[in-house]
Amino acid sequence: MSGVTVSPVAGFSPAQPPLPTPSPFSFSVASTRWSSRPPVQTASFLLRFLSLLFSFGSAFALVALPSTNSKLKKYPELLYCFTANILSVIYAAYQIFKNICDIAHRGICISDKASDYISFFFDQLAGYVLVSASSVAVPSIKQMEIGSSVWNASVASVCLSFASFIVYVLAAFLSGYKLCKRIMW
Amino acid sequence: MSGVTVSPVAGFSPAQPPLPTPSPFSFSVASTRWSSRPPVQTASFLLRFLSLLFSFGSAFALVALPSTNSKLKKYPELLYCFTANILSVIYAAYQIFKNICDIAHRGICISDKASDYISFFFDQLAGYVLVSASSVAVPSIKQMEIGSSVWNASVASVCLSFASFIVYVLAAFLSGYKLCKRIMW
Repeated sequence: MSGVTVSPVAGFSPAQPPLPTPSPFSFSVASTRWSSRPPVQTASFLLRFLSLLFSFGSAFALVALPSTNSKLKKYPELLYCFTANILSVIYAAYQIFKNICDIAHRGICISDKASDYISFFFDQLAGYVLVSASSVAVPSIKQMEIGSSVWNASVASVCLSFASFIVYVLAAFLSGYKLCKRIMW
Repeated sequence: MSGVTVSPVAGFSPAQPPLPTPSPFSFSVASTRWSSRPPVQTASFLLRFLSLLFSFGSAFALVALPSTNSKLKKYPELLYCFTANILSVIYAAYQIFKNICDIAHRGICISDKASDYISFFFDQLAGYVLVSASSVAVPSIKQMEIGSSVWNASVASVCLSFASFIVYVLAAFLSGYKLCKRIMW
């Protein structure tokens, strides 16, 4: 009687050998569900998305106006801010692409170890470049006419650039933690 | 015959009990000699000294000229750079003081754990503030007359400030490594 009740729960007949532990199918099933993925990966994905959003917003605010070309020529500081944010968008897009690859087919991109080193290095670099670009753009805003469309766009761009910098600081903490775990264990 | 040859090498007679391993005296003796201290501590001390030197040089270059007051009033970016480097000097001096305390009497200052957290946080902060201050000062240099004494002093100050930033980046890596080791083990 007990054999009859147990076998439907286990999902295979007692004659069939049990699946090895951990099951080779357990990871692929677990990794496709959002809630069962490791929290570090979820947080990393969220931070990448936020950095993409803020950096894209910052770059977009500068080029959305009709007088973009003359503006960027007049204030090279804004051009620096724009370039830094475009590079940040490209890097964040790569990281999001890699995260999605990891979820779909684990390890289709570069190896995890190389990726951890790359993430750590570029997160730090992106943070320093973005805080530098945002800081440089602030004095150039003071030279503009307050309330003009150029002034509005520049302030929005610098604020979003700072927000992106904060996100990269958090991402650098996270990738540093991941790298430490990899080196130490 | 074999017992006679072994005992002089070991350094004590067979009747004397061997010293416990590790010896209770090994740390205090080792810590007073430069070469036998852990390399992380030596590297940390060297980085603190370099950051103190560079930041002091950067601040000193700005105030050494007679026309300092008017210069700092005319270019608030230079004032920001000066303030950041003075704060960096104070922080580096505190770290050197703590390192010397550690060598003389281990743990006379705050606890090692709190110190690791403080070092990690403030190294990161100092790096971001210094790169921001150095970047902001660059456009203000472009407005000065090339070759004038003010221009020379500002260029020297910004270069030293950047050097100090690089040192803080390395110090942040080191303190992050120390913090990771403390958390994980």
